[in-house]
Amino acid sequence: MDKLIELIQNHRSIRKFEEKLLSDEQIQTIVKSAQAASTSSYVQAYSIIGVKDKQKKEKLAGLAGGQDYVANNGHFFVFCADLYRHQLIAENYEQDSKEILQSTEKFMVAVIDATLAAQNAVLAAEAMGLGAVYIGGLRNQLADVCELLKTPNYVLPLFGVAVGYPAQSPDKKQRLPLQHVYHEDEYTQDKTAYYEQLKEYDKEIAAYYEKRTNGKRSDTWTGQMAGLLSRPTRMYMKDFVEGKGFNKK
Amino acid sequence: MDKLIELIQNHRSIRKFEEKLLSDEQIQTIVKSAQAASTSSYVQAYSIIGVKDKQKKEKLAGLAGGQDYVANNGHFFVFCADLYRHQLIAENYEQDSKEILQSTEKFMVAVIDATLAAQNAVLAAEAMGLGAVYIGGLRNQLADVCELLKTPNYVLPLFGVAVGYPAQSPDKKQRLPLQHVYHEDEYTQDKTAYYEQLKEYDKEIAAYYEKRTNGKRSDTWTGQMAGLLSRPTRMYMKDFVEGKGFNKK
Repeated sequence: MDKLIELIQNHRSIRKFEEKLLSDEQIQTIVKSAQAASTSSYVQAYSIIGVKDKQKKEKLAGLAGGQDYVANNGHFFVFCADLYRHQLIAENYEQDSKEILQSTEKFMVAVIDATLAAQNAVLAAEAMGLGAVYIGGLRNQLADVCELLKTPNYVLPLFGVAVGYPAQSPDKKQRLPLQHVYHEDEYTQDKTAYYEQLKEYDKEIAAYYEKRTNGKRSDTWTGQMAGLLSRPTRMYMKDFVEGKGFNKK
Repeated sequence: MDKLIELIQNHRSIRKFEEKLLSDEQIQTIVKSAQAASTSSYVQAYSIIGVKDKQKKEKLAGLAGGQDYVANNGHFFVFCADLYRHQLIAENYEQDSKEILQSTEKFMVAVIDATLAAQNAVLAAEAMGLGAVYIGGLRNQLADVCELLKTPNYVLPLFGVAVGYPAQSPDKKQRLPLQHVYHEDEYTQDKTAYYEQLKEYDKEIAAYYEKRTNGKRSDTWTGQMAGLLSRPTRMYMKDFVEGKGFNKK
């Protein structure tokens, strides 16, 4: 199974696809693979919405900030945290489970469940020779996304996954040094060592961008992160998530 | 790559392991596989703590509610949402990024990033012939877990993953019908159809438990879910998560 390790470690996000749609069989294989992931206490607290309608895909692309691969791909999946069916079950058993459904714990369970399923879906797609990219931009304007996809309360779209036949072959993006991310027995908090590691890592990343853009882009990882941490983004999320019934108690 | 699809779709949680530790090389392969997962805007907002110390493992097993496979396995990983290094970067760039770091949006980003990494780790382990199980029970008493693993603010342990050489071969647990989880173009909200599907599914699950326990256990999926939704669990989570610096704004 070295092939699988290789496939996992060679992952790249694909942002340009051939004009060829996935077959229903391919879609089913991907969804079944998603469903095979572990699920907390068997709750299966997620749903997947596959978007085929071209107009809807274009609207989603606009809502995601004009990423055209949201519209142009083999298939577009939206992964949602979902406690809707659990609410129906509580109703059916004549139970008041509101406090539990609305807890931060159950919110985390649903987000984790949906994400485990999504990563299985992405790897299954890659194993089929397809490419994929996660679309966090779906959270830019979630109210419009919910309206477009007609999601009820207790359903929260988290991100999209565009899948298709790759029409590009991007370089791999170097991850943080392993010892920076992996700790043994306890969490290391040596700031000096951290900053040293980040300095080295920044050099690597700068070289990557310089090579990729023929010297046009000069950037580091910490520079990117500092930029990200200077722009408040999606600050409406707390209220929105609570409005959908999650993360309130 | 049918083998890989098969591996993904044949997943079972393994809760009994041989007494044989993973090698450092195996651990590295698993961590590198985790790191290869997609990450939102390249933030890499997670850390992994590998627990080797036998006493610590036993304490964790106790905290997780006495699950002995938390102590007895080939290696125990703890996956954490982590914005600690991002806070250091903000500090280093002399930026006040508190509002952003503490947003629900960034909390979701960190939980999603950590979970994508974890699922890669689990599949890499399975590809190496190992077995794995997620340990959500780590969230039973998170304050003690954080103390034991010495995690600072902006680090939140989410779940454990016990990995090792399988010493059992459990049956596969049937997932919800595909059409229940997968919607096309918009979310279906036909309650009658939902209840019908759940009734059918309950029959399947009841047959599974009856077969597995020689008729001793009679249970359905909706029955399990109703039970779960009648017991408030980890209701301290909202305050705890906020206390760690996440999900506040």
